[in-house]
Amino acid sequence: MSADFKNIAIIGCGLIGSSICHAIKRYYLQPNNQQLPTARLHIIDHNPEYLRIAQEANLGDEYYANPADGVPQADLIILASPVGSYQAIGKQIAPYIKADCIVSDVGSTKTSVFKDLAPLLPEHCHFIPAHPVAGTENSGPTAGFASLFDNRYVIITPPAQHSPEKLHLLTRFWQNLGAHTEIMSAERHDKILAITSHLPHLIAYTIVGTTEKLGHDLHQQAQTNAQDSIDSRDITRFAAGGFRDFTRIAASDPIMWRDVFLNNQEAVLELLEKFQNDLDYLTNAIKQKDGASLQEWFTKTRAIRRAIIAEKQAGHFIATEEKKD
Amino acid sequence: MSADFKNIAIIGCGLIGSSICHAIKRYYLQPNNQQLPTARLHIIDHNPEYLRIAQEANLGDEYYANPADGVPQADLIILASPVGSYQAIGKQIAPYIKADCIVSDVGSTKTSVFKDLAPLLPEHCHFIPAHPVAGTENSGPTAGFASLFDNRYVIITPPAQHSPEKLHLLTRFWQNLGAHTEIMSAERHDKILAITSHLPHLIAYTIVGTTEKLGHDLHQQAQTNAQDSIDSRDITRFAAGGFRDFTRIAASDPIMWRDVFLNNQEAVLELLEKFQNDLDYLTNAIKQKDGASLQEWFTKTRAIRRAIIAEKQAGHFIATEEKKD
Repeated sequence: MSADFKNIAIIGCGLIGSSICHAIKRYYLQPNNQQLPTARLHIIDHNPEYLRIAQEANLGDEYYANPADGVPQADLIILASPVGSYQAIGKQIAPYIKADCIVSDVGSTKTSVFKDLAPLLPEHCHFIPAHPVAGTENSGPTAGFASLFDNRYVIITPPAQHSPEKLHLLTRFWQNLGAHTEIMSAERHDKILAITSHLPHLIAYTIVGTTEKLGHDLHQQAQTNAQDSIDSRDITRFAAGGFRDFTRIAASDPIMWRDVFLNNQEAVLELLEKFQNDLDYLTNAIKQKDGASLQEWFTKTRAIRRAIIAEKQAGHFIATEEKKD
Repeated sequence: MSADFKNIAIIGCGLIGSSICHAIKRYYLQPNNQQLPTARLHIIDHNPEYLRIAQEANLGDEYYANPADGVPQADLIILASPVGSYQAIGKQIAPYIKADCIVSDVGSTKTSVFKDLAPLLPEHCHFIPAHPVAGTENSGPTAGFASLFDNRYVIITPPAQHSPEKLHLLTRFWQNLGAHTEIMSAERHDKILAITSHLPHLIAYTIVGTTEKLGHDLHQQAQTNAQDSIDSRDITRFAAGGFRDFTRIAASDPIMWRDVFLNNQEAVLELLEKFQNDLDYLTNAIKQKDGASLQEWFTKTRAIRRAIIAEKQAGHFIATEEKKD
């Protein structure tokens, strides 16, 4: 990495941006890399609080509020802010990007990046979008950690015309941070992620919102009828029955996710229709007390879990004691 | 516990039944309990394979295929099988239950237990249903572990007429296994659990089923059109974006969950209607590219996560490496 990039600019120091910083530092701390000159890390964030925290945690070497100030030396620029901000950032940085620089990102939607960012960039740079399929429900510069990308996939979506050498550099960059890499088209990425990430988040946001409103309603009822009433504390105390896993997903960054749904609208709506049909089917099975159909459905869904475990992408949930929460 | 119960019969040695056995053993292993005579543990399972595994793992003291054989000595009987099996088991054990015995269970629905089981039991026993709000996606006698109930809630739903002394014994039993206890009516339990457990499971089953069918469809398309096609392996490899958490929930025991939905139909259908309305609202917001409404919704859902963390019911998800999976 050190030989590959002398100056790396990270625009946006949230969960992903700060994790990249940690993972780069971890890479240089490997014993066999002690001799290598390290890359200079330029951290850019428009939020002064985030910038202060990043600086105090010594996440980088230089700190800037304005993207235009942070990118001129960079031979790798990574946008790590919500995809809705790319157009504005693109306009700010375009005049300052040096020749042969790789401009990449970490956004969850990829066709939108080609539409919003690519046209703004100078021809002398190399535009190669990417998306690390990794994250937690925590946000901000204190949420990052070095192992976030370990054993996770980073999907790289180069334009049809690209430099194989630069693509190779970006691939090696992510592999050095612990990730597997996969190259595909932006269109294919957006269809896959609609299934594995965007629809699940929307559903989690929906159910947690439904419950949150219910908590309010029940709380108001409880004021008038104390006997056997349910309040929002009942919901939080007994959340271990399944609900808590949804709340984790639905605690993800609201602006990032707003932008995801605005930028992958078509694929998400298409899936929502299929989900809706299946929900109708199961609702009817419950209405008709059709136990056989329910059991058949619940049996099929086990297979996909086994496949995810086989791919080592399952994660591990500790049911007993909380540490990071 | 030893002074409280001399013989405990566990009917059904799955995740919960085997975890109770482990937790009882752990309780006796505490240094300050070394002097106490231990309770004899009678394990009953109609599945010979489960019984063999339980015996090889030395989970109890006596093993029976027939519930009628296992309960005559018991002063505490716990049904730990799917709630749909209670009626048949109740008929089998009723003639053999000794006077003053506590008959309890661990089922996820509680009004159904009063309907299906209570009328079958002799008057000389004490019927006190319970539900440990704890679990994992794994099933069977190898899935259990001693700490499953630590810091989790066990909801106890005694009948209006009950022995305070026996209720106290059952409460202490669960507290000795590491749990908090909470006493409420069966009706209230079923309403709360519909929110915190039954609806989340149904939604997880739905979305994983939707995706599983999609994987099949895409796989068939991939045969004819290799270019840029998506197959089911894409879904499993990139599941870390949110989908994997649903697959964990949707890998839960199919028969147990079939019985839950058949036995808490009304509360679940009522909630499904609210969920449906909210899903329509968010779908429309995406259709109309209404970013403000999306962001507002996604911001509210964060609050409930914080409340669950405050109650220490959040669990802890390790994003990096899998151990138990």
